[in-house]
Amino acid sequence: MEALKKKIVEEGSVIGTEIVKVDTFLNHQIDAEFLDKIGEEFRNRFAGVEVDKILTVEASGIAIACAAAKYFDYPPVVFAKKAAPSTMNEGFYEAEARSFTKGTVSKLKVDSKFICPGEKILILDDFLASGEASVALAQIVEMGGAEVAGIGAVIEKGYQGGSDRLREKGYRVESLAVVRKIEDGKVTFD
Amino acid sequence: MEALKKKIVEEGSVIGTEIVKVDTFLNHQIDAEFLDKIGEEFRNRFAGVEVDKILTVEASGIAIACAAAKYFDYPPVVFAKKAAPSTMNEGFYEAEARSFTKGTVSKLKVDSKFICPGEKILILDDFLASGEASVALAQIVEMGGAEVAGIGAVIEKGYQGGSDRLREKGYRVESLAVVRKIEDGKVTFD
Repeated sequence: MEALKKKIVEEGSVIGTEIVKVDTFLNHQIDAEFLDKIGEEFRNRFAGVEVDKILTVEASGIAIACAAAKYFDYPPVVFAKKAAPSTMNEGFYEAEARSFTKGTVSKLKVDSKFICPGEKILILDDFLASGEASVALAQIVEMGGAEVAGIGAVIEKGYQGGSDRLREKGYRVESLAVVRKIEDGKVTFD
Repeated sequence: MEALKKKIVEEGSVIGTEIVKVDTFLNHQIDAEFLDKIGEEFRNRFAGVEVDKILTVEASGIAIACAAAKYFDYPPVVFAKKAAPSTMNEGFYEAEARSFTKGTVSKLKVDSKFICPGEKILILDDFLASGEASVALAQIVEMGGAEVAGIGAVIEKGYQGGSDRLREKGYRVESLAVVRKIEDGKVTFD
């Protein structure tokens, strides 16, 4: 998605050789108008794919999943939680994911009533790095007897191998911008 | 907002006499189509109010703030974080807020570059209970020399006094549904 690559170059910044910081429009400050275009692009990428539900993970994935929902005729959006609130008092599915930028391990949780057998669930997130979060979400989908319709990321860190790992597991992966290399403060895309 | 009250009654559930659970459409599973209507209603409530930015708090506030952004001509949406990622490496404003449902104290953080002097900032969130989160967000706005344009909540727990507290401080508060009482598993609205 050319408009996204342009936005990453113009508004993003890099830290070292591994981190792309897009807090001006994606994961701290959000450009909701631009996210609408991102949502539409996900529909284009997954054209013809049946989607009963969109699953993401708090926090940055939420805006993306909701923006995409509009273009998939508003299926329910579910976001996995990193901590269970006291009101999450029934059964839930849980899977572990490491966060690259936070250096922590999260146990992603989804109330079991929101994953139904046979549903086709599209997984969307802001970043795809090593693929840990996507694998955890896919595990949750499968624990509930549902099916992964596809995995979409706004920005893929191509050098971390996540999409290869997910494709090897048989998932369809679509990343709207694939960063191949960060060198001397500059980002190179595929 | 009648459609919201109806949805709370039909799809929500209550726990004891203090908790309204709306995880089927607002804060775990999200009905993005309905949130669009909520966003429009916030514009109606704050008609004529100048809004340069919308501030909310992760996670459940994000979808609401983004839905509202559309009806305010897409100002930037900023969400306060409860934990600072390793990429948040510059100055940030911080204020404490207790979470009623989680029983925890969060230190809400916003990168200082996202609050600019003179900006008129609308604060939106899913719940207004004791008002702790809104007060914390208002403090952050004011730390940055910006101004609170108003405070909006989707659901107010009227019995917890938060809106009175906020109005005493001089803020304009708009809640789309005010729960007055929960008794015998039933919700009564103002």
